[in-house]
Amino acid sequence: MRDIISRLEALDFKAMYNNDFLLTADKPDDELKAVFETADALRSLRERNISAGIFRSGLAVSIFRDNSTRTRFSFASACNMLGLAVQDLDEGKSQIAHGETVRETANMISFMADVIGIRDDMYIGKGHAYQKTVAGAVSEGFAEGVLKERPVTVNLQCDVDHPTQTMADMLHVIHEFGGVEKLRGKKLAMTWAYSPSYGKPLSVPQGVISLFTRFGADVVLAYPQGYEVMPETEEAAARNAENSGGSFRKTSSMEEAFEGADIVYPKSWAPFSAMEKRTKLYGEGDFDGIKELEKELLAQNAKHAEWECTEEKMALTRDKKALYLHCLPADISGVSCRSGEVAESVFNRYRTKLYKQAGYKPYIIAAMIFLSKMKNPPKALLELESAATPRRLTI
Amino acid sequence: MRDIISRLEALDFKAMYNNDFLLTADKPDDELKAVFETADALRSLRERNISAGIFRSGLAVSIFRDNSTRTRFSFASACNMLGLAVQDLDEGKSQIAHGETVRETANMISFMADVIGIRDDMYIGKGHAYQKTVAGAVSEGFAEGVLKERPVTVNLQCDVDHPTQTMADMLHVIHEFGGVEKLRGKKLAMTWAYSPSYGKPLSVPQGVISLFTRFGADVVLAYPQGYEVMPETEEAAARNAENSGGSFRKTSSMEEAFEGADIVYPKSWAPFSAMEKRTKLYGEGDFDGIKELEKELLAQNAKHAEWECTEEKMALTRDKKALYLHCLPADISGVSCRSGEVAESVFNRYRTKLYKQAGYKPYIIAAMIFLSKMKNPPKALLELESAATPRRLTI
Amino acid sequence: MRDIISRLEALDFKAMYNNDFLLTADKPDDELKAVFETADALRSLRERNISAGIFRSGLAVSIFRDNSTRTRFSFASACNMLGLAVQDLDEGKSQIAHGETVRETANMISFMADVIGIRDDMYIGKGHAYQKTVAGAVSEGFAEGVLKERPVTVNLQCDVDHPTQTMADMLHVIHEFGGVEKLRGKKLAMTWAYSPSYGKPLSVPQGVISLFTRFGADVVLAYPQGYEVMPETEEAAARNAENSGGSFRKTSSMEEAFEGADIVYPKSWAPFSAMEKRTKLYGEGDFDGIKELEKELLAQNAKHAEWECTEEKMALTRDKKALYLHCLPADISGVSCRSGEVAESVFNRYRTKLYKQAGYKPYIIAAMIFLSKMKNPPKALLELESAATPRRLTI
Repeated sequence: MRDIISRLEALDFKAMYNNDFLLTADKPDDELKAVFETADALRSLRERNISAGIFRSGLAVSIFRDNSTRTRFSFASACNMLGLAVQDLDEGKSQIAHGETVRETANMISFMADVIGIRDDMYIGKGHAYQKTVAGAVSEGFAEGVLKERPVTVNLQCDVDHPTQTMADMLHVIHEFGGVEKLRGKKLAMTWAYSPSYGKPLSVPQGVISLFTRFGADVVLAYPQGYEVMPETEEAAARNAENSGGSFRKTSSMEEAFEGADIVYPKSWAPFSAMEKRTKLYGEGDFDGIKELEKELLAQNAKHAEWECTEEKMALTRDKKALYLHCLPADISGVSCRSGEVAESVFNRYRTKLYKQAGYKPYIIAAMIFLSKMKNPPKALLELESAATPRRLTI
Repeated sequence: MRDIISRLEALDFKAMYNNDFLLTADKPDDELKAVFETADALRSLRERNISAGIFRSGLAVSIFRDNSTRTRFSFASACNMLGLAVQDLDEGKSQIAHGETVRETANMISFMADVIGIRDDMYIGKGHAYQKTVAGAVSEGFAEGVLKERPVTVNLQCDVDHPTQTMADMLHVIHEFGGVEKLRGKKLAMTWAYSPSYGKPLSVPQGVISLFTRFGADVVLAYPQGYEVMPETEEAAARNAENSGGSFRKTSSMEEAFEGADIVYPKSWAPFSAMEKRTKLYGEGDFDGIKELEKELLAQNAKHAEWECTEEKMALTRDKKALYLHCLPADISGVSCRSGEVAESVFNRYRTKLYKQAGYKPYIIAAMIFLSKMKNPPKALLELESAATPRRLTI
Repeated sequence: MRDIISRLEALDFKAMYNNDFLLTADKPDDELKAVFETADALRSLRERNISAGIFRSGLAVSIFRDNSTRTRFSFASACNMLGLAVQDLDEGKSQIAHGETVRETANMISFMADVIGIRDDMYIGKGHAYQKTVAGAVSEGFAEGVLKERPVTVNLQCDVDHPTQTMADMLHVIHEFGGVEKLRGKKLAMTWAYSPSYGKPLSVPQGVISLFTRFGADVVLAYPQGYEVMPETEEAAARNAENSGGSFRKTSSMEEAFEGADIVYPKSWAPFSAMEKRTKLYGEGDFDGIKELEKELLAQNAKHAEWECTEEKMALTRDKKALYLHCLPADISGVSCRSGEVAESVFNRYRTKLYKQAGYKPYIIAAMIFLSKMKNPPKALLELESAATPRRLTI
């Protein structure tokens, strides 16, 4: 813990105070590192039964515009750990449809909100924009005196990025390899994989290539022709690699990506252009068009069923034992579908590690909130540790 | 804070202890004033980061029989501030349909409930009756020893009144004008306004005319012929005006109502008689009849599209700058609809104030709960203030 | 309270620590008695306004695969009393449908979970199996280091048993008769009763005959031919009766069961074999078959409309005043249906007692959690009592 706090004190993350966490691309390296250190510190407190309850009361608003299990529970866990109660904005049960603007709703739910967590990943060009609108609205509300405190917005997944996922992924990698500096020179293969379902979000591959290129990794993005991701995120990856001394390249061969890789992240996603088209059709209310598009996408997917993470492909990786990552749930061949993203034997071998990977997410979210709410996070962590209020009675 | 507490101590509100808050009409002036003072006191605590957590644990049950955003979040905020956890009774997910009586359900959810908040505004003649049934059932359960403590019922909107809204409205007005005594002689125009949607509840206009006439205001209720409200609430308004030295009158001209007004509250509602008819049709399961009625109502509304709060009409008010009120969301012409309740420029000029108006609601609800749960509210407030337990860590 | 703790100290319930509560049949008598004593102790604390908050933060996951009002609120109340926040896993809003295994979901929701409460009573052969799978998954996750603490699973109703209901029933009986030892030699009639609805779960009759035979009661199970319950639970009842010195027998006459009974529990249920058939049809997606089956079941029920708990039948019981039990909601003739399980006058005479019976459930659930979370529950109870932290401010 003292080590964590020393490292934290050496970082510059002043700008995180009272600030949102929307895209990792907006955040300097030190701020990302501060999230990792704080997540580890909060985990250490929790595992020693020390309360991290920095709030005696307070509301965390969650807005899930898409189904969610693990992110919902991760957010609930993070908020509960810090002392906040979650109140879900269920748009189906709200009056939002009746002519309420986003600005208005954002203020109306925020009179006593400390945090707003938003998942909005369904429509390209919409999710990040929505989150920025909400964050802007409550900033304005705070400036105008409508809100006495400014709730911070945390991106629980948007069309561009999925920072709570990719940072949990990276924290897992950090612990597997022994430090963020160990990422330098490691080869990471972010590859498309076959799935019998369509329309999976692009935020994970986009977020992974943007994030891992920042710490000196050699990132390869592999997909069959037609499965392009947002050009901006590829450009960011290239720029980041140049800055960090890592590399970023693309290939259309899964095997080539796996060759000598230290880390593999095979995961299905929908083509960016198809998602753009779907957004347009949706905007036009053209549901027949959407149905048609879905059929096309499934047919397109089916042509690439060989993009499966098999034992043969794993054998191509460094020492035949690259670290296999997935954000879960995975399409496991012969388990959750006939043929999917990953062979059953590969998945099973990494199952425990995958679950641990997922287990970092609540701490990542809690760290993002903690860093936005405390003026002096290292001091606050020390205070919590020395107060040592038990999280639960142990008699 | 000391001033607030002195004023509070001068009021007689003993009867609020262990009591419900269903209609402002049931409450003497002193009790309403006690709510305003307590709301301000709780706000003062909150803004100084002092916890108002009078409960270490406890349940607040919410029953929303209609969609809601702001009231739901206001209730959640109020309960959270006081230390209660909200548990929603979602009738769709419950067994209530299967022959359970209201009395039974009310007791079953109340073994550890401290508060029950209910919104039931859809059907004329039903909402208030339902709330009284629930409140009566738990009183009986308490008397019979089924419940060890008696949860209090708070009206989060019914067919007759919307006290948490209208009292938040009035607290806003009090702060705008500098005291409840400043309401004397002020002209308030509660007027119907055009909306392209039908069936908006009557509880706000009914609650406003009942409430504002009590403190000496000159209240004018304006609506096009056919948009009558519940006769009982008009009678109450007339009676209240007589008692308070204010006045209450009606007109069918929006302009006349606005003329020299200090406060305007232009808002759409459905005709009382149409709502009665709808309740009857609904009771008979006559959905074709309901559809037909809705069509008629929209056509009827459309005849009165000139009932819009325009700059021209605002220019008729005192010094051309009456305080514009709305319970939100408003139908803003050119924004949320082609033509609606209010012109965009008027709405925008008052937007910040409208948001502040809404911001009083969590405190009003918290004050209602506080006054029903504390035997000696001024002493409890002083105790909270001197304990000065921080709401959140500020390091 | 000291008496309760002395009795508790004399029992052997070490095995409950860190353990689940799925079936009463799995638990030795001492563990059941420990639940009763602890429930009473927690009730005593609550009624003296002493907080039983053994958790400062923590998550209680609820999984309701069937509608529920009272069990949902009982679980919420129990968790809130202990300091846990409830987070509902709404399978409709989750990604579970998309190929996620139960094992995976169980781990994903449990990173910070202390308790998992599950209701899954719809399909014979499924509910208990599902609960065991969840409990096994999190045990495995704990063993593998995925979870740092092992959440305990509490059965909130399955296809086999409904322990939180039947133990609340028994605690009620204990208080009515003056001690668990007073059950010896008492005649309990668990009888089928007519209902105009079909498919009511078997968990209550099955749980009642398994549980009450353990404490020396003379249990009679009565039902019309064709309404058999799970054979395993009848066998358990017979075995338990032999061990305890009580008795267990069956009859197809409601009158015979009521004759001289000290306690009557007339309640409708569906035939076990029909539920098995329904499970099979459901598995095959044969919805026409299910509809057909439901029609048959209703017709079968209708043949036994005379199985109603009338005044005449109550007059057959000991001193004409057996204790009438029901898990609620009951089908009351002339109230919730034309003709049902119980006559209105009988129900009304016992209404207050029935509500009190239901009121034990939150404490039973809290006791189950308490005993699984505290290493030394009597010491923890004494600690809570002597700390005497007020549950709520009383000023």
